[in-house]
Parts: sequence; C-alpha cells; structure tokens
Amino acid sequence: MSKDKQKKKIYKPKPISGFPEWLPEYRVVEQQWMDKIRAVFESYGYCSIETPSVEELEVIAAKGEDVDKEIYVLERLQADSNDKKDARLALHFDQTVPFARYVGQHFNELTFPFKRYQMQRVWRGERPQLGRAREFYQCDIDVINVDSLPIHFDAEVAAICYEAMDAMDIGRVQLRISNRKILMGLLAHIEIEDSVGVTRIIDKIEKIGSEEVARILKDDLNIPSDQIQEVLTLVQTKDIPSIKALNDEMQEGIDELSFVLNNLKHLPDHAIVADLSIVRGLDYYTGTVYETRLLDIPEFTSSVCSGGRYDDLASNYINKKLPGVGISIGFTRLFEVLHHYNHIKAGKKSPADILMVLPSEKQRALASDTARTLRNRGFKVEMYHAPQKIGKQFSYAEKKNIQYVWIPPFEEGNAHEVKNLDSKTQTEADPNDWTIS
Amino acid sequence: MSKDKQKKKIYKPKPISGFPEWLPEYRVVEQQWMDKIRAVFESYGYCSIETPSVEELEVIAAKGEDVDKEIYVLERLQADSNDKKDARLALHFDQTVPFARYVGQHFNELTFPFKRYQMQRVWRGERPQLGRAREFYQCDIDVINVDSLPIHFDAEVAAICYEAMDAMDIGRVQLRISNRKILMGLLAHIEIEDSVGVTRIIDKIEKIGSEEVARILKDDLNIPSDQIQEVLTLVQTKDIPSIKALNDEMQEGIDELSFVLNNLKHLPDHAIVADLSIVRGLDYYTGTVYETRLLDIPEFTSSVCSGGRYDDLASNYINKKLPGVGISIGFTRLFEVLHHYNHIKAGKKSPADILMVLPSEKQRALASDTARTLRNRGFKVEMYHAPQKIGKQFSYAEKKNIQYVWIPPFEEGNAHEVKNLDSKTQTEADPNDWTIS
Repeated sequence: MSKDKQKKKIYKPKPISGFPEWLPEYRVVEQQWMDKIRAVFESYGYCSIETPSVEELEVIAAKGEDVDKEIYVLERLQADSNDKKDARLALHFDQTVPFARYVGQHFNELTFPFKRYQMQRVWRGERPQLGRAREFYQCDIDVINVDSLPIHFDAEVAAICYEAMDAMDIGRVQLRISNRKILMGLLAHIEIEDSVGVTRIIDKIEKIGSEEVARILKDDLNIPSDQIQEVLTLVQTKDIPSIKALNDEMQEGIDELSFVLNNLKHLPDHAIVADLSIVRGLDYYTGTVYETRLLDIPEFTSSVCSGGRYDDLASNYINKKLPGVGISIGFTRLFEVLHHYNHIKAGKKSPADILMVLPSEKQRALASDTARTLRNRGFKVEMYHAPQKIGKQFSYAEKKNIQYVWIPPFEEGNAHEVKNLDSKTQTEADPNDWTIS
Repeated sequence: MSKDKQKKKIYKPKPISGFPEWLPEYRVVEQQWMDKIRAVFESYGYCSIETPSVEELEVIAAKGEDVDKEIYVLERLQADSNDKKDARLALHFDQTVPFARYVGQHFNELTFPFKRYQMQRVWRGERPQLGRAREFYQCDIDVINVDSLPIHFDAEVAAICYEAMDAMDIGRVQLRISNRKILMGLLAHIEIEDSVGVTRIIDKIEKIGSEEVARILKDDLNIPSDQIQEVLTLVQTKDIPSIKALNDEMQEGIDELSFVLNNLKHLPDHAIVADLSIVRGLDYYTGTVYETRLLDIPEFTSSVCSGGRYDDLASNYINKKLPGVGISIGFTRLFEVLHHYNHIKAGKKSPADILMVLPSEKQRALASDTARTLRNRGFKVEMYHAPQKIGKQFSYAEKKNIQYVWIPPFEEGNAHEVKNLDSKTQTEADPNDWTIS
C-alpha cells in the first residue's frame, strides 16, 4: 500500500433509504413544480406560513397512539444535565398538527377566515418503499374560521388543488369528491351501528370491487343483504341530485356536495367527479372529502392529493370552535413515483440562458461588463471562468444545457455575436437590445 | 367545574426556544428575501440542490470533535429490532458536509466546475440566544472543480453575495476580503511557528483594538515587539499593491487578492474593502476569505455572510482533489436580529392584490368568473366567501392589507367598479383590461 493510500480514509457515501435527493437536472423540475403550486395558492390569496421542523413531543403525540412508532425524536449527541430541563422535541409527521398548534398559539394575531398554505418537509420513520419516503415534502392548503365556515371554501380549495396539480404538466388530473354526511346519514337511517367498520370496507371498493365489498359486509359484519344493496347503490351513484334524502343529515350532505360540484363547473369535464365511495380519515373529516387520481399515469394507483372538511382544528390548544377545510398534495411521493416510472423529463443542468465566452484574458472586463448588462436586463448569464479554447467553452455550454453562447468582440466597439446551440445559427447581437427569439 | 370544561384539556402552546417561527406578515418578507437571493444566485448560472435533512452520523461527525455536542441525532419513538440494522442518522449542522458528501456520491453525474446554491434549514443544539437559533436557514453558494479552480470564482462569489445581500434592502452592505496567504507568508518569513495562535488573536482586532492585540501577542505568546509591529502594520494595510512580498506565498496572496479586488471595481465604493485582519476558519480556508458587515445596522456587530476558498472539499468521500470557494449567508440569524431591532417592515397579511366582493348569492357566478378572468391575467384575487354586508367585506380587505376591492355589478353586462383603499378612489373597471395604476 502506498503512503498516500494509507493516509486517506475514503468513505464511499451511499443513499440513505427513505431520504430522497435529486441531481440538479431533476431538482430544477422539483423547484419549478413547487413554484407553480405556490403561485396557484397565492393567486387565490392564501398566505404562506412555515413552522419549525419540531414540536414538543406532547403536541406531536396528541394525535393518537397509532402514529407513535412513526415519530422521530431528537437527542443531542452529547446531552448534558441542562437538557433535562428542556421539553423533548420530535420532528413533525404532518403539517396539520403544527398548523393547529400555530393557530392556537397565535390566535389573537391572525385574521379569520385564516387562509394559509404550507410547503415543508415532514418525517415518518416508516419502512421506506417506492412512494413512501421517511422525509418528504407536503404542500398543504387550508382555511379555517371561528365557529362556522362557509361551504364556499369546500369548492375553492378543490379548484385550487386541481389547478395546482394541472400546472405540473402530468396529464389529466381528476378530483373525486364526496360528502360523508350522505353515507353516514344513510347508515344512521338504516340503523347500522358499526358505521366505522362499514365505511372502512367501502373505502376498498375501487381496489377489490363491489361484489367483494358486499361479501365482506355480509360475512364479516353480518349486514343484511337488502341493506348492503342500499349502501352499494348509494356509493355507486354519480348523479347527486337524483339521491333521495332519508333524513336531515343526508339532505345536508346532498346540498353541500351539489353546491361544491356546481361551483366547479368551469373546470374541464374530466376534472371533477362525485364519488360517494370516498370516505377517508374516519375520525377526522365530517363533510366534504377529496381524493385525486392521475388519469394518464396508470402506475400511480393511489391518491396523491387528498383532504376534507373538519369540525374543529385546534381544540387541543384553544377553547374555540375552529372548523376548516383543506387539501394536502403529497409532493415528494408524486415526484418520486413519476421519476421512477420515467414520467419526468430532466431539466437543464444550469439555470443560465447564456454562457458568456471569455476569449482571452484581455477581454475579461468586456465579457464581465456584457454579462452584467444582460443580467440587468433579466437574463441569467454564466460567465466562463478562464480564457480556454473556444471549443472547450462551447462544449461546456452543451454539457450544461445552456442554449445561447455569447462571444464578445476582440475590441470594444466591434460587434458581439451569439450562437444558438439548438438552431446552430450565429448572429450579431447588441447586449442592450438582444432578446431570445 | 362544568362537564364541558372537564372534557376539554387545553394545552396552551408556547414558542420553543431556538426554533423561530413568524406571523404571515413577516413570513412573506422572509419569502421575498429568499426569492431575491435565489434570483441572484441563478442569474449567475448557479443551480439548486437540496440534500436530506439527515446524514449518517459517521458522515456528520467526521468534521471534528468540537461540533459533537451540537449534533441532533434521530431516534424513533418506538424503535423496534429492525432499527438496529439501520445506520444512525443525525440532522446536518451546516450545508458544507452534506454538499461534500453529495459531490462524492454523485461525482460522475455532475459537470465541473460545479456551481451550486443551497438554501435549507440546518440544526445545532446550542444554547439559544438572539441571532443563534437551533434551527435556521443558511443560503450557501459554492463552486468546486477538479484539481484546480480559477481565481475568477473568488471574485464571482463575492459579487454574487454582495448583490444578494444588497437586494434585501437592509442598507449598505460591505464585504471585507482578505487572502490568508499574505499573513501566513509573513508569519513564515519572520519564523513565527505558532501561526494558529497568532491568527486567532489577530482575528479579534476589530473587537479589542490593535493595542490589546499587541499586548496579548507579547505577554501570552512571547512574540518580539518588532515582529508584532510588522504583523500589525500588515493587517492594517488597506492598500494591497503597496505591500512588499517577502516570499512566494505572500506574492501569490497579493496577486490573488489584487485580482479579486480589481474584478469587483464595478460595485459601489462602500461595497468591497480589503481587510487583512480577517482570518476565519483556521484549518479550513487556504486563500481568499470573506466577511460581511451591515454598515447601517449598528446592532449587527458580527459577520452575516462569510466564507472563503478551500483546497479540498470531499477528500473524505472521493480520491480526487476538489478545490472550491464559497460563501454562506446566515439567513435566519440576519432575519431574527433585524426583526428584533425593528428593522423589518411587516409585509401584507394576504398575497392578494384584489378582494372580489360577493354582494349577494345571486352574483356568485359572476363574481367567480370575474375573479378567474383577473387571475388568468396574472392578478392575485381573493374571493369573499359569503354575501355579507359590503362594509364587512371592505373591512376584511383592510385587515388583510388587500389594496383593491372589486365590486361586480348587480346585473351581468353592467359596469364593474374597483375601489383603491389607499387612495380612496372608486372607478369603473373592465376585468379584461384593468391594470394596477
């Protein structure tokens, strides 16, 4: 072994399972998508908030036993006695719990209805698999109000999320919408007591089919056949106004869902469908519920953008009734799965529009000045770093996907030239009025 | 105690020390500043990368013993036997270590010189105080290359960071630049062996003054008076070309620093100064070093944007020499201190330009359509959610700092009106060609 090799301990880094990272040409796509989502959220007047990555463990764990095992707790590597005074901190596993805590904490400083979006990483210590990372971005949008929240917002957040998903250029997106009051009203009317059990099975109808759902309802839950038929007929109805309300709860659900559908009529035909088999978040959602399908990406079989209406956001933190409605886009999940199935076209390796050639040391000042002039006019300009052979500078531009190569003249006052690497054309250009044609 | 109160356990949330969060009207400023920094970084052709929030503990801890106590390690709340197979994960405490690991891991897929920026949160378990949070954003820009890196970049990253800081509208920003080779060359020439000890003391010259530095160098390090004088004369020199090189190392430092200063001449007079008393990162930086001062914010006494040139980024991970130069903006630190001293003007509570009034249920479709027309034309439009009294809708716009209130007509075909809440003027308007005047 040579002395050199003895000295150097090389640690070959490898990816950490469940913690995705991207090469620059994919990161730029991720960034563009997030920019588009943000732009849509803001175009409806929703403001941004961010919360810390951690909450006190007491706050995080309040949501229920079943998520405990997914929680990452922080420990200082060399904790000292002072640490015991501090509360234990845990990374948030969603953005709803931190949002509820935020509203509870800052209630008097917020204006209601409070319309916010939040695009942050969350962490879950689950076993990683495709589409289920341990660290991932979610893009949430919610609106909450004191005491009551107009049904207006149930339509608005659906329109916003459709538009945000559609902006990402991933084919046709479909929001499926239901209102839990309709099914729950029916179950109450026909006196089915185990409504949680029944809805949990109905939730599987798309995967296992209605016959299998009927079999399970009969065999496992002992629901009489005529009741099963009534339930299945309802959840397969697409024509909401045709449903006959059997009690006030059903009527409320039908009215609300009709309002929502009615206010989304401006969207393309495929965009919105009523689907009464959608139940979601059994303990949490109380009215409108949403799921989303990517119609042109068959590999993506589950919902990538889901949510609904809830009665009370922050009752753990504040003695107020705060109903809300919201949707969450599972951003990293979407990105990871589409990337895996080659549905994402790599972006450019450099954000630059133009590479400024440095023909010789003598031309450095002129090249710098020209680059600055172009940057001031809004172009992104990478300046080549050394007066190397022109061919080498051109091939650098090609490798980095920079479309235009700018060649400053040998003498100030002479003409600049620009080569378009796509069209292979080279033309004279003035840095003060050149534009991308 | 009433039954109701017994039922509800209210947990009053409080801020977690060292984990800042902002109200929407400050978050929007944070966002605008980060957008500006990103825009400047990209305008020079630097690409974005993000790394996971965690690295394997082995990677994180490689940087040295002194940061061990600041490291947060992740533990699953309910770890099971499978966990023992996984490597231990720790939150990154800077972006340099993850960047080095990233370059080592993806070396064959990157194009060099690799110019990247990275704007992420980092975590340090230090005792929190003003300007020293436990979770904070850093905005890093670095360029690295294989074997050698042109001095061009030492000027470029300085220009970029000046421009990025200047874009934030926080008064005059000053970059102070040195080249460690000049001082190290002198120390070698006059045969001072404890160069680390001497530079550590010189680093304090701005805080304690040159007389105190001289006293410590004499009393604690037994440096002879004439040598102290020689060192102090050098580090207080502002005129780099006037320095007489006493060996090759000094000459190299003078040439490099002169090149850098020369290539930053286009910036305002106050923007760039040579300051040979800057040493920084004693073991790490090898040439150019940077610090930054906010000239108009006297409360901010330390550097908020620092960096330098290093010989070898990723020798832990790859058997290549990868020299680089980079600067890091301590974003959260800057934001927190300026916020504390009331140097940050709150932004708007809503991103909306326009509030669309909903005069009555009958006008809902018209109001929605109008809002959509305006959004398609690039305006941000919040639609009021219920046909409440107009006065209430106007006062909502005022509370949320929405400047324009749009009143759709009672009958389609009649004129729309817009009120500017700043100028108190109300005029007729057409949604298809209205503009902000």
